[in-house]
Amino acid sequence: MKNHIITISRQYGSGGRKIGKQLAEKLNIPFYDKEVIDLAAKESGLAADFIRGQEQQLTQSLLFSIVTNFTGGGSLNPNVLSLSDQVYLAEANAIRQLAEQGDCVIVGRCADGVLEKEQELLRVYVCADLSERCKRAVEEYGDKPDNIQKTVKEIDKQRARYCQHYCDRAWEDADNYDLCLNSGKLGLDACVNIIQTAYEQMKKE
Amino acid sequence: MKNHIITISRQYGSGGRKIGKQLAEKLNIPFYDKEVIDLAAKESGLAADFIRGQEQQLTQSLLFSIVTNFTGGGSLNPNVLSLSDQVYLAEANAIRQLAEQGDCVIVGRCADGVLEKEQELLRVYVCADLSERCKRAVEEYGDKPDNIQKTVKEIDKQRARYCQHYCDRAWEDADNYDLCLNSGKLGLDACVNIIQTAYEQMKKE
Repeated sequence: MKNHIITISRQYGSGGRKIGKQLAEKLNIPFYDKEVIDLAAKESGLAADFIRGQEQQLTQSLLFSIVTNFTGGGSLNPNVLSLSDQVYLAEANAIRQLAEQGDCVIVGRCADGVLEKEQELLRVYVCADLSERCKRAVEEYGDKPDNIQKTVKEIDKQRARYCQHYCDRAWEDADNYDLCLNSGKLGLDACVNIIQTAYEQMKKE
Repeated sequence: MKNHIITISRQYGSGGRKIGKQLAEKLNIPFYDKEVIDLAAKESGLAADFIRGQEQQLTQSLLFSIVTNFTGGGSLNPNVLSLSDQVYLAEANAIRQLAEQGDCVIVGRCADGVLEKEQELLRVYVCADLSERCKRAVEEYGDKPDNIQKTVKEIDKQRARYCQHYCDRAWEDADNYDLCLNSGKLGLDACVNIIQTAYEQMKKE
């Protein structure tokens, strides 16, 4: 039987992580964010700090690695994969393991793409207006206010590229989710309540 | 004081119209869909049937009309606008008039773009998987099953083009909405409940 997994993709500064954490507490199910890194490190042998630094920094395409390194006649050697590909694969394996343990909330790392054929998903995307996100980035995440708009946009661009690259889909496209929420407009508490309603609906079916 | 307007953009076959109608009944506020056409016809002098046929059929760009027809020294003559532009302007005026009367639900016609600076909006987008939409198009809307995928996709492309043209935004981009719902995954009733929760939240603020 498949588990019910809530995946949260979120624009930087939208409060998506906070929403996921509150939601998991309310539903009394595990919440995974940085825990994915720890498990990926443990299982892959890569250092957690290395994974943290490498996350979503695309270096060389997986496909390109395969094409240029796979000369046929043998199985794919993980040592020839780019660093970003190794991190992606380690995290994807960690996400699969965590999802197999039971219902949970997973933030980021294209968990929706990784799990789409394996589990029952509620795919959530959290966004907010740029001004709101910059405010949160400075006040809550402690980012420097200089060039904050540029910083926030650049992180979102990285996330979009990562999603396009590894899951072959447009990150910000509503059609790729079950529920998209503007946290600035709705407020974090209402977002939590709305996702809870949708999750309970999904469990009923 | 601004009114609270729920605008619903919807993929063809997603049941977005039905959701909007149920929602309006539940909230006891008016629901506008084809009513926009009737008012636009009344106010503009264009025939309702003509508007219906012309809707979302882009002919010539508004900007292009202005550039090529406006030779300076006078106000813009509506007679030199393309047919699609005339229909757009007539519908936009109708939408403004309806929104000024009080809280309501408006389906389609880029009402979110028309009203964004004038009213307090809850911008909703309803989508669903292609197979679900084709099923609804055939079973509920009475479309012919031959080439139904192509028909459904073409109508969505028209809607996207219309939105891009008149509101300069990507129709399917989650960042342009406050709430996006996959009606196939969540079910129509849950969609109605979720929008209601968000509307009540918006009214509180």
